[in-house]
Amino acid sequence: MNRTQHRPPDPAVEQADAWSPFEARARFRAGLSGPTAGFAAGHTQANLVSVPADWAYDMLLFCQRNPKPCPVLDVTDAGSWTTVLADGADLRTDLPRYRVWEHGELVEEPTDVVSHWRGDLVSFLIGCSFTFEWALTEAGVPMRHIEQGRNVSMYVTSRQCRPAGRLHGPMVVSMRPVPPQHVATAIRETGLLPAVHGGPVYCGDPGGLGIEDLGRPDFGDPVVPEPDDIPVFWACGVTPQAAVMASRPPFAITHAPGRMFITDARDEQYRVA
Amino acid sequence: MNRTQHRPPDPAVEQADAWSPFEARARFRAGLSGPTAGFAAGHTQANLVSVPADWAYDMLLFCQRNPKPCPVLDVTDAGSWTTVLADGADLRTDLPRYRVWEHGELVEEPTDVVSHWRGDLVSFLIGCSFTFEWALTEAGVPMRHIEQGRNVSMYVTSRQCRPAGRLHGPMVVSMRPVPPQHVATAIRETGLLPAVHGGPVYCGDPGGLGIEDLGRPDFGDPVVPEPDDIPVFWACGVTPQAAVMASRPPFAITHAPGRMFITDARDEQYRVA
Repeated sequence: MNRTQHRPPDPAVEQADAWSPFEARARFRAGLSGPTAGFAAGHTQANLVSVPADWAYDMLLFCQRNPKPCPVLDVTDAGSWTTVLADGADLRTDLPRYRVWEHGELVEEPTDVVSHWRGDLVSFLIGCSFTFEWALTEAGVPMRHIEQGRNVSMYVTSRQCRPAGRLHGPMVVSMRPVPPQHVATAIRETGLLPAVHGGPVYCGDPGGLGIEDLGRPDFGDPVVPEPDDIPVFWACGVTPQAAVMASRPPFAITHAPGRMFITDARDEQYRVA
Repeated sequence: MNRTQHRPPDPAVEQADAWSPFEARARFRAGLSGPTAGFAAGHTQANLVSVPADWAYDMLLFCQRNPKPCPVLDVTDAGSWTTVLADGADLRTDLPRYRVWEHGELVEEPTDVVSHWRGDLVSFLIGCSFTFEWALTEAGVPMRHIEQGRNVSMYVTSRQCRPAGRLHGPMVVSMRPVPPQHVATAIRETGLLPAVHGGPVYCGDPGGLGIEDLGRPDFGDPVVPEPDDIPVFWACGVTPQAAVMASRPPFAITHAPGRMFITDARDEQYRVA
């Protein structure tokens, strides 16, 4: 997963920040498959996890019991690939890349899941920290990973989620190095966005979360901090994937990390004040 | 339901605001059965709805799809009468009064439900506006119903909740008359408490919610506004009861309106900033 080099400019995604959500989804449907950070600026991106109906109650309860990593934005009816969050969207085709899981094992990373779809799948769309990065940037907090052209760093922690039925697993966090004078602002601004992970779960020594080496994230890219930066950790929407890995439901589909579903919702509508 | 007279002082509940949640629950377990407004000040009160496990997914999804009336604070495992929100509490005995429902019909209003309990019941504890009344009072917003010694007025609206599986029904709201100079404060303060209904859903002409006569609430007491007061409407945790009435699950238990479950949680922990 880790890419240590900066991404070269890609003409296929030039001005992707100005795309409408509709246009972004159409491009992904046509085969564009890269990360979505910064695409369709101002529009809410979401994590996807789809499980058989037999597992849907456990997943919904897992999300309710772990709202910081798993804030639910929408749940579909069984078999449906539409969502109230995006007019005309098809959840089987409109993400850049998917992951297909069998008994907790990653078996494929296709760019659509039409041939994998099942009539009993219930899809969960879960808030994503890309939304609060907009608020942090607006508030003047530098985003080191964006400055460095990288995906955010994500880590599996030693902190266990509260289990729900057959589902259990560790909390996954994203980390952003924050300059000391911006830490209070970062905490305040993200606290106003509880639907997209809310305030951080931890600041400082990564050992407290069981993270041994910030330079070796479990998902995403390593990000180089500036001197004096404090590592700040937010609960991450990859957590349901970690629960799939740990709990081994017979079948699941998720987005590929960093390749999110772009909704029609506006980021600011999730701000509580 | 409506009581048009002020309550006389009741020596059994003198200084109930100073009770601990543990003490309050013990009193209810011993038979005290009245409304809980103002009890165990600063501690979060919750609505209760318990349904058979077969209906639990529909109820949890109904709550997820209608988070303003139905903000979920905890969901128990099937058959369990304990909750992480209250150490040592017994959900079958520790509320002042319950309602027992069969096929959507109210069949009994007992002070405990030990004999009604079933091994397949899943209990939902849902945020209550009593929590945000604390914040409003702190912010200097007068609470007319408290001044008048009455239960808050609640109304069934013409606005339908988003259905979930077999569950559907209208949104229920609570109404507080707010002086014009306090409306902005009331909206801001409650907006910071999304786990307990958040900001109001509507202000002004009750006809817009299909409410014909503010003087005839569907639950609670009529409250007399001062001249110039604006009626402000918040989504209400009685909404799941209205869904039970409309959707007719074979069996359900709820709290009786105004007779809430008092948790160990502190109101301020639900404040986002």
